[in-house]
Parts: sequence; structure tokens; C-alpha cells
Amino acid sequence: MPRVYNFSAGPAILPEPVLAQAAADMMDYQGCGMSVMEMSHRSPAFQGIIDTAEADLRDLMGIPENYDVLFLQGGDSLQFAAVPMNLALAKHGVADYIVTGQWSKKAQQEAARFIDARIVATGAEDNFSHLPDCSDLPLSEDADYVYLCQNETVHGLRFAQLPDTKGKVLVSDQSSMFLSEPVDVSQFGLIHAGVQKNVGPAGVQIVIVRHDLVPEGDIDGVPVMMNYKTHVDKKSLYNTPPCWNIYMCGLVFKHLKELGGLEAVQKMNQEKAQLLYDAIDESALFKGVAAKEDRSMMNVCFVTGDADLDAKFAKEATAAGLTNLKGHRSVGGLRASIYNAMPRKGVEALIAFMKDFEVQNR
Amino acid sequence: MPRVYNFSAGPAILPEPVLAQAAADMMDYQGCGMSVMEMSHRSPAFQGIIDTAEADLRDLMGIPENYDVLFLQGGDSLQFAAVPMNLALAKHGVADYIVTGQWSKKAQQEAARFIDARIVATGAEDNFSHLPDCSDLPLSEDADYVYLCQNETVHGLRFAQLPDTKGKVLVSDQSSMFLSEPVDVSQFGLIHAGVQKNVGPAGVQIVIVRHDLVPEGDIDGVPVMMNYKTHVDKKSLYNTPPCWNIYMCGLVFKHLKELGGLEAVQKMNQEKAQLLYDAIDESALFKGVAAKEDRSMMNVCFVTGDADLDAKFAKEATAAGLTNLKGHRSVGGLRASIYNAMPRKGVEALIAFMKDFEVQNR
Repeated sequence: MPRVYNFSAGPAILPEPVLAQAAADMMDYQGCGMSVMEMSHRSPAFQGIIDTAEADLRDLMGIPENYDVLFLQGGDSLQFAAVPMNLALAKHGVADYIVTGQWSKKAQQEAARFIDARIVATGAEDNFSHLPDCSDLPLSEDADYVYLCQNETVHGLRFAQLPDTKGKVLVSDQSSMFLSEPVDVSQFGLIHAGVQKNVGPAGVQIVIVRHDLVPEGDIDGVPVMMNYKTHVDKKSLYNTPPCWNIYMCGLVFKHLKELGGLEAVQKMNQEKAQLLYDAIDESALFKGVAAKEDRSMMNVCFVTGDADLDAKFAKEATAAGLTNLKGHRSVGGLRASIYNAMPRKGVEALIAFMKDFEVQNR
Repeated sequence: MPRVYNFSAGPAILPEPVLAQAAADMMDYQGCGMSVMEMSHRSPAFQGIIDTAEADLRDLMGIPENYDVLFLQGGDSLQFAAVPMNLALAKHGVADYIVTGQWSKKAQQEAARFIDARIVATGAEDNFSHLPDCSDLPLSEDADYVYLCQNETVHGLRFAQLPDTKGKVLVSDQSSMFLSEPVDVSQFGLIHAGVQKNVGPAGVQIVIVRHDLVPEGDIDGVPVMMNYKTHVDKKSLYNTPPCWNIYMCGLVFKHLKELGGLEAVQKMNQEKAQLLYDAIDESALFKGVAAKEDRSMMNVCFVTGDADLDAKFAKEATAAGLTNLKGHRSVGGLRASIYNAMPRKGVEALIAFMKDFEVQNR
């Protein structure tokens, strides 16, 4: 079967040259006589892989020297506990959460099991169809950090500008927008991201943390494996890391650099998103779900207004080689995730299909 | 470069047919038009992969129906905290540890941060060169479980028979012996294993837990992601799992079934280990480190008695295509890990090299 256009929200489409490289390296990585999957994590070959990956990521994002870069495992959902454990539990035990959809809600709920995790803004009353006003947040005097999810995968919302945290440390879940556009890392205390959207195969979380926020020792109640210090001290090699997954991330970093870096990537992403949102706005059948000013550049959520017709669309699109267009099971509707690796041609094919479908189903 | 014989303790050698299959599936898994790395974990294709993997593992090990099988992430070192959190924290808060080397020691130290983790036997005074007497352990009346590491990777020790736990729940870290021989799962309350020895690429831990030991709800202080109930309820799909890594494990399970199952695998492993230990015992230069009755079938530790000569051996062996023979950095010496995927020919090549080396260095 030919390759499909895969609009999955994650795990998601990866660049074809990267996959081809991975296949070519399978039996013998660069003359080592073994696969990356078989390689000791203490070997010079793997040290080269992880060092190069970190260096390329630092280069791509312009990560300042006073930030540590960690390649972790456990699922990004484990970070919902790790963030409060590391950044608040042994301090004031207070954090302010901006709740804008499923992921920030989950993060707040998990944090509340360990610290006083206060909701300072929420879009819940409007079903997360737009971002709440964050121009003058009622932040807590003693908040150890302010938390947001910069791109809500399920609801298709993106912070076009960051909230004013009034000097408080900002923590951002960038999972579904990671490396899709340039960001100024120095505005954040901590960025975490699961890689299975824009970067690589599920099984790695990247944490970028300002060094002064890393705990200085053990914290009561925090597993050694969840203390950032453990992994900072050992440069992500305290225990066996997910070597293959990190290798794949490294290949993607190289690929993004070859594309011209994050400015070039952003331009391509903006063009793809513009094309698709324009098609939705011009359509008499499809309607965008998110408020225009808060639209995600990665996850384009739309509906026909008729659940059966949505289902028909997703089904017929799959048959036409446009897969995974069903919205998240918690909200229904349709969703096209157009991450970095989705070619413009894929978006154009989707738009052509939408137009045909509209003609046949009005 | 041709493939080498890779004696790494983990990540470790994988079966060549499995790697070839992974390369062949790379751009298009079974007509899906995408790689397993790009596949939604909610897709029927991935559901098929994880369901088949679980079924094959249950079949291979004869796992009784009242045991749950979990594919987790976070590093097996995270299980050192997860086990006491799930099995003791909300009960008596007491467990008895048998300490026989680096891994059980680490497990006990981490458990002691959450519960009263008592050492009931240890081989520390003899530098973990043999197993302590476990025939009549001074177990705690209120112990929620007894813990052991069934094969100590660093020290090359294996429990040939299980200790008498006097009716207490037995928890075993089987990482470096997992699927190397048949085990009677019903003798254990919980088995955990990182897969990067005998099963697949680092990034998955398999937990096999008797269902009545799974917590019934949230436990204070335990992250949702670390509560076994979370993953039992969602059959390892609460969040995005490490899909590729699970797929690779599944390929290895199929491969082991094709080899004839764990009885056949054990026979091959016994033969390989016997050959190598015989060569060591017959040598005037090399000496086995572990007591004969406690020798691991997977990790064969030996020394020349001269650290410089050990280093020379490891270096020259690498040049001869026999790699990763250096002992663990904490103990030095030499170690040949001869997991399932190490062919008999690899062991024979190592023995031939040892004989040559001995002639030239006596």
C-alpha cells in the first residue's frame, strides 16, 4: 500500500527521510555491527547519539546555557506529577493553573493531589472553545509557578501570546506544538513535551528546565526517578534511557535543521494551517470549533454539525488515504493534526476531499 | 561492517529476523500506509499489536487468568518506587528485601524512602559473590511482600530455586532473566522486568501482577501514572504507550514461540552457559566470579585477576568482533551476557578467542 496522509493527533506522521534512515541503519548503525536498539547506553556510539541530539535541539531552539535538557521516560502524563513535585512540593506548595482544555485540566487535577494547585483562569464554561482572558490573572502571592498548556491538542487552541505571569515562573506543556515554531526559551522556567507529535516515536519526554529550579537533593515522597536532579546530574543516563526513541528524535532534529530551522518550519506550518482554515471558513458545510484568534496551527478542529455526517466524512476520508480525521473521543467532531511532517500536499488533498464531500452531502 | 557478537548486558543483542522484520515494516506496517511509530495508539492496528503481544506473552509464560499484564514506561528503576507504593504504602507499610547485588540493593534503598523496607538477607559481606542462605528467612510478621532480584546482572548471580517466603507475597525483578527459562508465575505476587535484555528495545517494563494485589483506588502520594490500577483499568492504554517498543517486544514473543517456547529457549541457554562456564573452569587464566551453585545463565562474570589484562582482553575482543565484554563499572572484570538472542556460535567464538588469548598472555 502507498503511504497515506496520516492526520493523527499523536503518535503522528514522521518525515519519510527519517524513517528511511532508520530502516537503513537497522542491522548496522554506522559500522557498529549492531542496531541502535542493541547498543549499550554506556557505549561511545550511544553517547554520540544523545550528545548530538541534545546539541541539535539546543541549536534549533536557542536554548540558553543555564537550562538543562532532559530526555525522560514515563509518559508526559507523569510530568503532571513531576512538575509540582520538583517545583513546589519543597517550596510553598502552591501553583496557579490556567485550564484551557483536557491536558491542562489533567495536569491541574494531578498537581492538586500533591500541592495546592489553584485554577486562576479557565475556558471550561465555554467548553474550551476559546482561551480565557489572561491579561490580568489573579495570581497567588506564594505561587511557585504558573502552568499552562500552550497548545491544547483536543480542543485545537493555541496561545498566540503568553500570559503575563507578573514575574512568576512559567511552566508550559508544549507537547503538541513542540518545534513547530520558534519560542523564546528564556520566558519559561520549564518546558515539557511528549515527543510523539512533532519529534519522534512515543516513549520520550523532553524537559527543558532552568537550572536554578532543579532540586538540590532528595525530596520526601518523590521517587528518585522523578527528581529532575537525578537526570540532570547524569545527563539523562542515570538508568537505561529509551535509546531508540532518542535516536529517532535526533534524526528529526537533524531533518528540521536541514529544512532551515524553526523559522522555516513555522512558515510552512502557517501556510498549511492558513490553507485549511480558509477552506473551512469558506465552506457552507464545515465549521471551525475554536475561536479564530485562538486557533491551533497544529490541531485543526471542525464539525459539520451532524455527528453522523462527521462519521461518514472520517470513514470516506480514510478510504481515500486521508486517515485519523476523527475528533478526540471526548469531544467528537473532526480534527486534522497537521504537524511538521505533514506535507502541504497532504493538506491540499484534504481540502480537495472536503470540497468534494461538501458537494455530495449538502 | 558485518554484525558483531554483542555481549552487552543491556540494551542487548536482538534476534536478526526480528530486526529484519522491523526494517521491512518501516514505511508501511501491514498495509496501513504508515510506520508503527506513526500509528495512533487508539487505532485498530495498534490495538492488534498490543493485544497480540499480551496474548503471546501469556501463552509463552503460562500466565494465569488472575494476573494482569502491563506494558509500562518510566524505566524499570521507577518500579523500585512503584512496587512499595502499590503493594505496601496503604497496607502495613512493611516489606522484606533479599539483597543480592546492585539491583536488589537499589530497590531496597528506594523502597525505604516510602515504607519500612527491611533487609532479611544479604550477600554484601562477601561482595555479592554468592547468594545468602534463604532457607529460613527472618521474615516480618507484617511484611506486605518479600522482594528479590532473581538474576543479578552486575554480579552474575541467579536464584536456582526460590526462597521460602512462608506464605508471604513474593515480588521478583526478573529483568535480566525474563523469558530465558520457564517460570511458574503462580509462585509470584508480582514480576517486573525491563525488556532491554531478552525482549526488546529499552523503554518498556513489563509488570505481571496478581489481580488481588492491584490497588482499588487512588493512594495518597502516588502519582496516577504509577498506580497499577490506572493501567490495569485501561489495559496499558491510559496514555500514549511506547508503541514501537511494544511492537518490537511482540515480534520477539512470536520469535520465541517459533523457537519452541521457553523450554526450548532454556535448553539453548543452558547449553551456551555450560560451554562458557566449562571453558572458564578449564582455563588457567580466567576465573569465574560467582559461586558455582549460584551462577547466572545470562550474565557470565569472570576475571583474569589482573585489571590491566582484563582491559586488554576486552579491547582485543572488541577488535575481533566480540563486543561489550567489560564488566560493570562498579565491579570491574569481564562479563559476557549471553541472552536468548546470542547464538551458540557467538559463545563458541568467544571461547576460541579466550583460548587464544590465554596462550598469548600466560
